[in-house]
Amino acid sequence: MTAGSETEARPGMDVRALFNPRSIALVGATDKSGWSISTLVNLRTHGFPGPVHLVNPRGGVVHGEQSYASLSDLPEPVDLAYVMVPTGAVLPVLKEGTALGIRSYVVLTAGFGEVGEEGARLEAEITAFARDNGLALLGPNGNGFINAAAGITPYGLPIAAPLLRGSVGVVLQSGALASSVLGFAQARNVGVSLLTSMGNETAMTVTDVLDYLVDDPSTKVIALFLESIRNPAEFTRAATRALLAGKPIVALKIGRSRLASNTAQAHTGALVGDDNVIDAAFRKLGVIRVRSLEDLLITAGLLAEVGPLPGPRIGVVTPSGGASEIIADRAEDEGLEIPPYAPETVARLTEIVPGFATVQNPLDVTGYVLIDRTLLGRALEAVTEDPGIDMVMLLSETPKKAPPDPAPTFALYKANAERIAAAARPVVVVSNVLVDVTEFGRAVQHETGFPYVAGGIEHGMHAIGAAVRWSESWREATRGAAGGAAARNGAHPATTTRPAAVAGATGLWAEHRAAALLADAGIPVVPSELAGDEEAAVAAATRFGYPVVLKAAAEGLGHKSDIGGVRLGLNSPQDVRKAFGEIVGAVRAATGVAEVGTLVQPQRGGGVELLVGIVRDPGWGLTLAVGLGGVWVEVLRDTALRILPVDAAGVRQALSELRGVRLLQGARGTEPADLDAVAEVVARLAAFAETLGDDLEALEINPLLVNGSRVEALDALVTWRG
Amino acid sequence: MTAGSETEARPGMDVRALFNPRSIALVGATDKSGWSISTLVNLRTHGFPGPVHLVNPRGGVVHGEQSYASLSDLPEPVDLAYVMVPTGAVLPVLKEGTALGIRSYVVLTAGFGEVGEEGARLEAEITAFARDNGLALLGPNGNGFINAAAGITPYGLPIAAPLLRGSVGVVLQSGALASSVLGFAQARNVGVSLLTSMGNETAMTVTDVLDYLVDDPSTKVIALFLESIRNPAEFTRAATRALLAGKPIVALKIGRSRLASNTAQAHTGALVGDDNVIDAAFRKLGVIRVRSLEDLLITAGLLAEVGPLPGPRIGVVTPSGGASEIIADRAEDEGLEIPPYAPETVARLTEIVPGFATVQNPLDVTGYVLIDRTLLGRALEAVTEDPGIDMVMLLSETPKKAPPDPAPTFALYKANAERIAAAARPVVVVSNVLVDVTEFGRAVQHETGFPYVAGGIEHGMHAIGAAVRWSESWREATRGAAGGAAARNGAHPATTTRPAAVAGATGLWAEHRAAALLADAGIPVVPSELAGDEEAAVAAATRFGYPVVLKAAAEGLGHKSDIGGVRLGLNSPQDVRKAFGEIVGAVRAATGVAEVGTLVQPQRGGGVELLVGIVRDPGWGLTLAVGLGGVWVEVLRDTALRILPVDAAGVRQALSELRGVRLLQGARGTEPADLDAVAEVVARLAAFAETLGDDLEALEINPLLVNGSRVEALDALVTWRG
Repeated sequence: MTAGSETEARPGMDVRALFNPRSIALVGATDKSGWSISTLVNLRTHGFPGPVHLVNPRGGVVHGEQSYASLSDLPEPVDLAYVMVPTGAVLPVLKEGTALGIRSYVVLTAGFGEVGEEGARLEAEITAFARDNGLALLGPNGNGFINAAAGITPYGLPIAAPLLRGSVGVVLQSGALASSVLGFAQARNVGVSLLTSMGNETAMTVTDVLDYLVDDPSTKVIALFLESIRNPAEFTRAATRALLAGKPIVALKIGRSRLASNTAQAHTGALVGDDNVIDAAFRKLGVIRVRSLEDLLITAGLLAEVGPLPGPRIGVVTPSGGASEIIADRAEDEGLEIPPYAPETVARLTEIVPGFATVQNPLDVTGYVLIDRTLLGRALEAVTEDPGIDMVMLLSETPKKAPPDPAPTFALYKANAERIAAAARPVVVVSNVLVDVTEFGRAVQHETGFPYVAGGIEHGMHAIGAAVRWSESWREATRGAAGGAAARNGAHPATTTRPAAVAGATGLWAEHRAAALLADAGIPVVPSELAGDEEAAVAAATRFGYPVVLKAAAEGLGHKSDIGGVRLGLNSPQDVRKAFGEIVGAVRAATGVAEVGTLVQPQRGGGVELLVGIVRDPGWGLTLAVGLGGVWVEVLRDTALRILPVDAAGVRQALSELRGVRLLQGARGTEPADLDAVAEVVARLAAFAETLGDDLEALEINPLLVNGSRVEALDALVTWRG
Repeated sequence: MTAGSETEARPGMDVRALFNPRSIALVGATDKSGWSISTLVNLRTHGFPGPVHLVNPRGGVVHGEQSYASLSDLPEPVDLAYVMVPTGAVLPVLKEGTALGIRSYVVLTAGFGEVGEEGARLEAEITAFARDNGLALLGPNGNGFINAAAGITPYGLPIAAPLLRGSVGVVLQSGALASSVLGFAQARNVGVSLLTSMGNETAMTVTDVLDYLVDDPSTKVIALFLESIRNPAEFTRAATRALLAGKPIVALKIGRSRLASNTAQAHTGALVGDDNVIDAAFRKLGVIRVRSLEDLLITAGLLAEVGPLPGPRIGVVTPSGGASEIIADRAEDEGLEIPPYAPETVARLTEIVPGFATVQNPLDVTGYVLIDRTLLGRALEAVTEDPGIDMVMLLSETPKKAPPDPAPTFALYKANAERIAAAARPVVVVSNVLVDVTEFGRAVQHETGFPYVAGGIEHGMHAIGAAVRWSESWREATRGAAGGAAARNGAHPATTTRPAAVAGATGLWAEHRAAALLADAGIPVVPSELAGDEEAAVAAATRFGYPVVLKAAAEGLGHKSDIGGVRLGLNSPQDVRKAFGEIVGAVRAATGVAEVGTLVQPQRGGGVELLVGIVRDPGWGLTLAVGLGGVWVEVLRDTALRILPVDAAGVRQALSELRGVRLLQGARGTEPADLDAVAEVVARLAAFAETLGDDLEALEINPLLVNGSRVEALDALVTWRG
C-alpha cells in the first residue's frame, strides 16, 4: 500500500499490482476446462513475458506441461493466482496463497452469491478474508482481465487476434459481453489498455478499477458497462477524479426501462425515478451515458483520438450530397451546429471545388473526388482555417481491400493524415456507414497515421455530440477546481450553518413552520399569520387586505388541499369566517386532530407556478427537482433533476430543459419570468438544504410563484427522517 | 407499353425493358473515364450475358476493344444505351438511338439542371424528347442501375465483390451513397434485387422504379433514400400498391431538421411542418421511416427474411445477462413487449438450463453454452412454443473465422437453422454488436440455411419494432381491401355529397357561416343567434339563459379574440349591452368594417378543449391535426397529424399519441372524455371536409369542448381558396 495514495479504496489492496503481475499461477488448471485452456493460451500468445505455473491437486501433466499439486509446491513465488478450483476450495487456496505472500487473485470460480444462500455464505467468507488480509481479488464468477497495454492476459475466454493495444480502458459488469466488446473494438480499430470482467464484485469493485484507470498512463478514456452502481458516493469520488484528470467516462448503464420511485413520501419523490437520478448524477459527473455497445466504443474511441473538443460548431467536408443531408439532420438531433462558412473560406473553397459544386456547410465536394483524389484533402485544409467553427468533420472511410498497387492509397491517406495533424482545429473523421475496419484499413491507419474513423454517420454524430458535451463538463470542472471552489459543477458554497431550530426535528413540518424556516434562510415567502379562531383570521385578513387565502394549520399536516384544508379567493370577513369553520371541520373530520388552526395569507394572482423539491436519494444524496406546476408536472412529469450541490447557473440550465420553459419565457401572454431571479432563489434553497444535516428527508415549495422578477414561495413542506 | 398495366406511369415508357436489356451500348466510352471503365468492368464481371458494344465518335480501340463511331454503326440493334457523352451531345444521341428503335437509356452525363439555367434548358429538351417518344430514361446525372437478380450491371462506379443477389430493392436519390449502401448490404449479408441511382429524375422517377419493384418477383422489400418526394399523389399510389402487395417500404427521408410551415393562413397550418406531414403520410402508407443508412438496410434485411410479424410480444433467448438487459431497455423504446413465459415454458426451460440460471424472459441460458453448445438451440425450441408470445428473438452471431475443423460449426448452425425453420413462431436472429458478417460467416449461412442476422441489438431492436408496426399497417390495409372499403387505412366512406351552399365559396367564412355549415353536416355545434343590435342580443341571451358569450360577427373576420371581439361570462342584460357596444367598437376600430354584429351563445364550462384543424397540404392534400388547447398546442405543439381519409379508429389512435392524452383520460380530476365519441365527431368532420371540393383550404374547430361524452364545437372557421 502506497501511503496516502488517492487510489487506495481498500486498506492494503494493491490494484496496480493485481493488473501488473510478473508471474502467474493457474490454480485448478485442467485439460477438461475450456477456461483453463483459454487462460493459458491467452497468456502464452498475447505477450506475457513472465512464468506461468499450473497448479492441480492431482499434479501430473496438464495442457502438456508439468503441473504442481499446490501453490506451496511452486518452484518460486508468484504475483498473481488465477483461481479455477471448485467453489468450496476457493477459500483454502486464498489462505494457502496468502500464507505464501500472494496478494493478487482472479477468481473465475462461480457458485457464490449468484446461486443462493449457501453460495452467499461462502462469498461472504472470502470477502472477509480478502478484506482482512488486504488482498486484491477480482471476481469471483468473473473471467479476469486483459491488460493489453502490458500484454498481461489472465482471461478465461478466447481472445480473437489481433488484440489491439490502445488507450480505452473497459470495465464490464457483465462478462458475457466482453467478447462482443473486444470484437467490436477490433472492428473499429480501437485499442484497449485494460479490460476487466468484474464478476460478483465481492472484494474489488468497479470503482477500484476506475481509480486505477484514472492513474494509468496508458488509459485516456474509460468505457463502462454497468448493471448497478453499488456505492454512489464512491462512484462520485472516482468519476470526479476522472473528470478532473481529463479522462472521459462513457457508460452504458442498463435499467432505463425500470422507472421506479425510490423515495416515497414527498410529492417530489414520486417524480424521481431511479433512472432519472442516474441521468442527473451522470450529468453532474460529466459521465457520458450511451444506450448501445456501438455508441460505447465509438464514442470512447473518438475521445481517445481527439481529446476535448472546443465547441459545437462543425465545419463538414464530404464527397456526397446525400451524406451531407443526413449529417445535417443528425447534427440537429445532437445539439451540434453547422454554421455557414466565413466569406474567406467560401472564396478559398470556390477555387478548389468544381464549378458545379455548391460551396456551403456541409460541403459536398462532389463525386469529382474520383477524378481528383486530392480534392477532399484540399477542401479540408481550407475548412480547418475557417474562423467561425470549432472543429471539422471529414467524411471518409478507411480502404477495405489492398488494390494491386497500394502505394497511391498509402500516399493519399498519408497526405490527409498530415493535413489533419497540422490542422488549426480538431478534425474528426466519420465514415458513411458502420462497417468493419479491415486488416488493410488498419494497416493504412497504422502506416500513415490516418486517425480514428468513427463508424458511420449515425453513431459518429452521436459520438461528436457526446464529446462536445463532455468537453464542456470538463472545462467547467477544471475551471471550478482552478478557482478553488468547494467542488466542481459550480457548487454553491454553503453560506449558512445548520440552524439551531432544526436540532432534533422529526416527521413532517407543516407549512407555517416550514415557511418560517425558509424565510429565516432568506427565501422569499408569502406573508402569513396563524389564526386560531375566526376573529383572529378576520383581523389578519384585514391587515393583509382582501382577497386572502385561508389554509389549515396543524402539526403533521401534509397535503392540505386534498382534505378541504385550503380556501382561496376570500373577499370579505364573512367569507373568512365561513371558510374558517369549514376548514377546521373538514380537517378534524379527515385527520381526527383536535388542534386545528388556520394560516391567513394575502392571495397572489397571475404569474407562473413552479414546483421546487429537494429530496434525499438513498444513494446519491440530496436531489433537486424543478418543474412547472399544474398539468406540466401532473400530466407531463416535466421536471429537471440535479444532484446537489447546484449553483444558480446550474438551476438556470435545469429550467431551460423543461418542455414548458416557453411558458416561463412569456408564451401565452404572461410576463416573461426573470430566470436569473428564479435560479438565484432555487440555488439559495438548495444551499440551505445542504446545511440542514442528514436528518433532512425532503423540502418542497409548491408552488413557487414567479411573476416577472418577483419570486415567492406560496406553500412549503419539510420532512425529517424518523 | 402493356395495355392497362398498373405500372405504367409514363405513356410508352417500359421500365421493365430498361432494367432487363439483353444488349447494351456504352455511348461515349473512353479510356480516359473511370465511369466508362467501371461500367464495362461491371458488365463483364457481374454476369451480364449479352453483347456490350462501345461507341466513341473517334472510333478506334477503347478499353482494348474495337469501338464504333455511332449507334448507327453497331452491328446489331441494342436494347439499352448507356450514355456518357458531353452534355450537349446527349440529345443527339437520344435522337439517333430513338430512330434506331432504342427505347431504354441510362444517362450518366452531368451538367444539366443541377448546374444552372443553360443546363436546365438542355434537361427540359431531353425530358420532352423522352416523353414524346416514350423513352425509359434513367438520369441524367445518375450512375445507372444494378439489376443484381439478373446480373445486369450498367453502373458507373466500381462494385465491390461479391455482389450479393437477394430480395431488397434499393432506390437512391443520392448516387454518392450507393457504394456505402452496397458495402453495408454486403457486410450484413443482405442481397439486393435492383439498385438504382436516380440522378436528376428528369424522365423516370422514384415512383416509376417503385412500381417496377412492386411487380418484380425478385423483390420482397424496398429500401429508399429520399431527398424529396416530387409527386406525393404518385408516391401515395405506388406506396399503397406496395403495401397491398405485402412489400414493405423502408425509407430514409432526409430533411427532418428543416421544419417549415407550408400552409400559412389557418392556425393549424403553423403546426404542420413539412416534415411532420411526411411522418403522417408515411404512417398512412405503412412506409417505415428510419434515420440512418444502418437502420435502412438492417430493417429491410429483416423484413426480407421474416415477412410480416404477428405481434409485439417477444420471447427472448440469449447467452448473456448483460445483453438481456440491454434488450429489455431497447424493447421498451420500440414499443415491444417481453411478457413472462407461460408456466409450461418455464417448466421446460428449467429442465434445459443449468441450475444456477434464472428462468425468465428475456432468458439468459448463461455462459454454460460454451460447454454445452446445444443449450441455446434447445432453449430456443422451448420458447418458440410458448403460447403467450408472437415471435422469438435469438441472440446469436455468425462465426467470424473458420476454425481448423469447421465441421462442428457447420453442424451447430445447421441444427439451429432447422429449429428456426421448423419453429411454431417466427424467429428473428440478432447479434450483440454491429460487426461485418465475414466471408466465412456468409458461407455458414449459405450452407446451413442459418437465417439473416440483424446487426447488433441497437439496430436489431429498431428493425423488429419497425417490422411489427409495418405488419400491423399491412394487416389493416389488406383487411380494408378485402372488405371492399373505398380505400385502405379504414378510410371513412364519404357519406355526403358536396353541399350546394359552398358552391363558389371564397375567402374566409367567419364563425356563424362556418358553424352553420358544420351543423348541417351533423357536427354538434353550440347553439348561437346572430344579433345585430343590443336588444336582439339581450333577447337571445334570455332565450339561452345566462351566462352567455358574445362574439363579433362580420364577414372575413378570423381570429376574433385577438382584436377584442369576444366576451365571456356575461351574466345579465346589462353585461350583454355593455359587451355589445365594446365589441362593435373594438372590431370597427381594428378592421374598419362598418357592418359588425354579434353572435350570442350560451356559455359552456368545464371539460377539456381540443383543437381540430383540417388543412390542405399542397402535396399531400387534406391533413387533420388534433391537439389539446391552451399550453398544449401553444407551448408544446402537442398535436397529432393524419392525412385524410381517416376513420374514427384512426382519430382515436391519433388522440392516444398526444402527450396530454392523460388529461382526456381524467387526469387532474376532470371527467374522463368519451374518446370514442370525440373520435366519431372528428372523423365525421374529416369525411365532411372531403366532400367540400378542391376549393377548401382549411377548416378549424377551436375549441371542440369535450365533457365526458358531450362533444361540441364552440367556434369554427372555414377558409376557401381564392
